[in-house]
Amino acid sequence: MNISSIQNPKVHWLRALLSDRNKRQQEQRFVAEGIRLIEDAAQSGQLPECVFHSNQLNSRGQLLLNGLIEKNIETIGLTADLINRISDTQTSQGMIAVFKIPQPVIPNNLNFVLIIDSVRDPGNLGTLLRSASAAGVQLCLLTPTTTDGYAPKVLRAGMGAHFHVPIVDISWDDIIQICSAAKPALEVFLAESNDGSPSWQQDFKQPLALIVGGEAWGASVAGKTLASKNVKIPMPGQAESLNAAVAGSILLFEIVRQRLQ
Amino acid sequence: MNISSIQNPKVHWLRALLSDRNKRQQEQRFVAEGIRLIEDAAQSGQLPECVFHSNQLNSRGQLLLNGLIEKNIETIGLTADLINRISDTQTSQGMIAVFKIPQPVIPNNLNFVLIIDSVRDPGNLGTLLRSASAAGVQLCLLTPTTTDGYAPKVLRAGMGAHFHVPIVDISWDDIIQICSAAKPALEVFLAESNDGSPSWQQDFKQPLALIVGGEAWGASVAGKTLASKNVKIPMPGQAESLNAAVAGSILLFEIVRQRLQ
Repeated sequence: MNISSIQNPKVHWLRALLSDRNKRQQEQRFVAEGIRLIEDAAQSGQLPECVFHSNQLNSRGQLLLNGLIEKNIETIGLTADLINRISDTQTSQGMIAVFKIPQPVIPNNLNFVLIIDSVRDPGNLGTLLRSASAAGVQLCLLTPTTTDGYAPKVLRAGMGAHFHVPIVDISWDDIIQICSAAKPALEVFLAESNDGSPSWQQDFKQPLALIVGGEAWGASVAGKTLASKNVKIPMPGQAESLNAAVAGSILLFEIVRQRLQ
Repeated sequence: MNISSIQNPKVHWLRALLSDRNKRQQEQRFVAEGIRLIEDAAQSGQLPECVFHSNQLNSRGQLLLNGLIEKNIETIGLTADLINRISDTQTSQGMIAVFKIPQPVIPNNLNFVLIIDSVRDPGNLGTLLRSASAAGVQLCLLTPTTTDGYAPKVLRAGMGAHFHVPIVDISWDDIIQICSAAKPALEVFLAESNDGSPSWQQDFKQPLALIVGGEAWGASVAGKTLASKNVKIPMPGQAESLNAAVAGSILLFEIVRQRLQ
């Protein structure tokens, strides 16, 4: 029997988790939508708490669903109409899963941390997290002025990053604590569009944290205070600045270059 | 007297230019919206053909409008309600300008060309053009399978790139011609996520063109055929790929690094 009513309490709960940051924080749960994303999670050993699915799944979706049922995950069938209505995407793939926000474990030998400070656009944040995951960042710290890392649009742009790299909403006090408690302590670099030495003149082989600021105003005062070095991306052409996710990604992969080359 | 009717022929023409790629191509005109973008154009010496403006501009908008009137640009007043209705943005700044698509001049001493192949998302395309402008790319060539470079969303994400770097819709035959006619001929690199040598092992100081492929399937067959070298961005972390605009930007700024360092 598939649920067809938007008034159903389970459906109501799912919609709150999709749309309401406070609800996500309160419950420490988030929602991932789409077959590929849920497959990616399962392959990384992160199983959802429950899965809402359409009664008209394609064969790939049905295969994934069967695998989750075998693992005793709760599954909740909805009519295709209802799941389309709930979906945050334009064309729903018919699967929406609820996950617990993982309790982050701070890795030993911390040497590559990304601090995302005041990034407001969910697409930019997700894109930056995707780059961080690809670059091998060990820990992504989201400052209090950054948009919610577990919003559906961030998940979508993140393309699985949420299942590969710890993403933590955190206070500046705790960020300072993490950077200084690491052994050796992390050098904190701040990405600045108009100030600092070129990225390739920095020593990025040392254990470090990189602060990437937001679209309009860059990093917050707390971020600027914590950083010991400013780093810029020289721009020989005509542009005031780069997109925030792009600028952060260029620096992450300059770090990768220096460490691998 | 401000126009208040959406049926007005001038307004009808503007809306067609905003929404219809064929109309833009036919007329060789495009639309830029927002005070900052139009300021940026004017500062680069590119004046609009005409400007639609709200009767409730802020002081910065009024200053810009006065400057354009002094330069004998046609201005067309609309009610604030109407311009909000026409606007492609959520909160209109009350200024929308029509420009002629510039006839691109192929620079002499061509040595830094970006070929954007099969990028479909307007936000990604605009972001990549913004990076190209910042990196000092001399010419951006958009292949037939790339989304319209003059769509309003591309303009918005481009943040002025359209006024700083030539952007050309072009056939593969003409691309091949440009790359081989350059003296010396351009080495053509293809960004590939799974194949090729690391970016930093390439010689990016030579005159070159870089092909960046689309989000889902990468470059087209024509792009793969034209390229003489594949280049990849090594990804030590866990991710299948990077966002297309991010990957392209990382390579553009690796080229900048090699040339400036």
